[in-house]
Amino acid sequence: MSQFIKDGTIKLTNGVSVLSYAAAVGKMEGDGPLGECFDYISKGAELGEETWEKAESKLQQYAFDFALRKGHFLSDDIDFIFAGDLLNQCTGSTYGLRQYNLPFVGLYGACSTMAESLAMASLFIDSGMGEYCAAVTSSHFCSAERQFRFPITYGGVRTPTAQWTATASGCCIVGAVTEPPYIKAVTIGKIVDMGEKDANNMGAAMAGAAYDSISRHLSNTGKNVSDFDAIFTGDLGQVGSDILCELFSRHNEDISKVHKDCGLMIFDREKQDVHAGGSGCGCSASVLCGYILPRVRSGEYKNILFAATGALMSTTVVQQGESIPGISHVVEISHRR
Amino acid sequence: MSQFIKDGTIKLTNGVSVLSYAAAVGKMEGDGPLGECFDYISKGAELGEETWEKAESKLQQYAFDFALRKGHFLSDDIDFIFAGDLLNQCTGSTYGLRQYNLPFVGLYGACSTMAESLAMASLFIDSGMGEYCAAVTSSHFCSAERQFRFPITYGGVRTPTAQWTATASGCCIVGAVTEPPYIKAVTIGKIVDMGEKDANNMGAAMAGAAYDSISRHLSNTGKNVSDFDAIFTGDLGQVGSDILCELFSRHNEDISKVHKDCGLMIFDREKQDVHAGGSGCGCSASVLCGYILPRVRSGEYKNILFAATGALMSTTVVQQGESIPGISHVVEISHRR
Repeated sequence: MSQFIKDGTIKLTNGVSVLSYAAAVGKMEGDGPLGECFDYISKGAELGEETWEKAESKLQQYAFDFALRKGHFLSDDIDFIFAGDLLNQCTGSTYGLRQYNLPFVGLYGACSTMAESLAMASLFIDSGMGEYCAAVTSSHFCSAERQFRFPITYGGVRTPTAQWTATASGCCIVGAVTEPPYIKAVTIGKIVDMGEKDANNMGAAMAGAAYDSISRHLSNTGKNVSDFDAIFTGDLGQVGSDILCELFSRHNEDISKVHKDCGLMIFDREKQDVHAGGSGCGCSASVLCGYILPRVRSGEYKNILFAATGALMSTTVVQQGESIPGISHVVEISHRR
Repeated sequence: MSQFIKDGTIKLTNGVSVLSYAAAVGKMEGDGPLGECFDYISKGAELGEETWEKAESKLQQYAFDFALRKGHFLSDDIDFIFAGDLLNQCTGSTYGLRQYNLPFVGLYGACSTMAESLAMASLFIDSGMGEYCAAVTSSHFCSAERQFRFPITYGGVRTPTAQWTATASGCCIVGAVTEPPYIKAVTIGKIVDMGEKDANNMGAAMAGAAYDSISRHLSNTGKNVSDFDAIFTGDLGQVGSDILCELFSRHNEDISKVHKDCGLMIFDREKQDVHAGGSGCGCSASVLCGYILPRVRSGEYKNILFAATGALMSTTVVQQGESIPGISHVVEISHRR
């Protein structure tokens, strides 16, 4: 049984291993600095499909399939699948995974969904609710741009604070403890509103939530920033990352030495025109599954925090002048049992 | 610890009580046959707000507030809140609940969200992950119509199979066993695609998922239709209800004597022009919290199944010619411990 601590943090007691993980990405992500980390890189944005939405669903299907294959699982081995994405009504997930006939828990955490799904899957396993659970999410530049901003062909000009939605998907399969990476604890995010109203400045909207969840996780588990080799945020980009470091600094803590942001890792901002960095559910998901987890498995990282971040807005509420709240869920992952 | 059974069904072992519940609805729902069951009935669709989206958020806030008050809880007593809704990116929930500063697990199950959130909240409690959890969802006729079909002022003609999105919200607060209603078991839904492509025939799209989850729940728990006083589906309406009974009949089971549909209960189809019945996340949520749970508490119902049903489509994928998959999550609720 999971041992409840407090204020959104749950420490796992039986323990959970990430048994398999995979990342499937688009061409631009494959051309980026983490290109060699990914299990599948598509040749184009279409993935052989007629629509961007179908392409995103296919990417999610690929991530799940690769995770199954790498872990020598059949899809029927999976007891529960936790998934969600950015598309209206989460159709990236429901159409991507409908063929598998598996018990499906739909989640919505915007770009925090990889941490949310991994947290829920791990808590299920730790509580004895199943033998194997999968956590999966995705995003696609073209489906997200059309939905949240403009169709690609419109050629809208992007502001300097704008981020580039990654065409990417990641999937983790978790089960009882066998080998690293181990899931040690999770902190469920709260909705934090910084008053940001610019839909082209997601980093600023999410930084407060990241600060709240990371500092709450540290406080609730009695740990310090220095206990971790790295603290990964989801997709704050350059603007949000600067704000996060500033928020910790104001509380007399220095996170800058261990802080890394998946949105800054997935693209080369010198060579790739992504402005403030990458974003999207698939950004942190693919960096987690392609880059982070292999390094926790090998022991290169002993202890890390994975704090994916989401902006909980829709085009409708932004057009209505609402501010954009953020959320961040934290998963503590360790090489040691 | 929850005892895992199989194929998506989890039987609760420590046991969970629904300690408080409340329903907040719009005027038309208040004028319907269940009008006396609801805790709050708004005078108009606006709830004093400038936009339909804000009105929906307010309804969800009211349901949560009434559930807190009726159970003598403060919002800080709640360890985790599970919520979602139909609006793009679930903004009904995130804007309705952002003021409470609570650990928030965002869900997306379309109109099945009340069963999904109640299932997850109950599993958390049963596994010792918190003392009190809340499950809440909502829908609003005007925000849903504009998003999924036409703006209200357009005056689009509705087909006979169309359903009327309820302006309603429901909230349950669950905790360790004290008194009925008790949550006994849950079955997590699978994505079931019947090939239905008509976005104005949600009942037909969801009936297969309801059949799959209810029959799986019965089979996995070793129970029969006759073990239940009533089996409530979410919002199949008349078309979907007929299909569900037919599907059971084809498998030599008669569900018709105990089957009730929240979408057929909330409105009077003779007097209210709702075509095939009510729908929306808030439909089954308000019927559960306003009508069903009080009757399980009193013992009028000894054992019931609550099988909320959702259609996992978006306007985008329907316009692209995709069929509409459904999902149904089942919660078994009993007067006896």
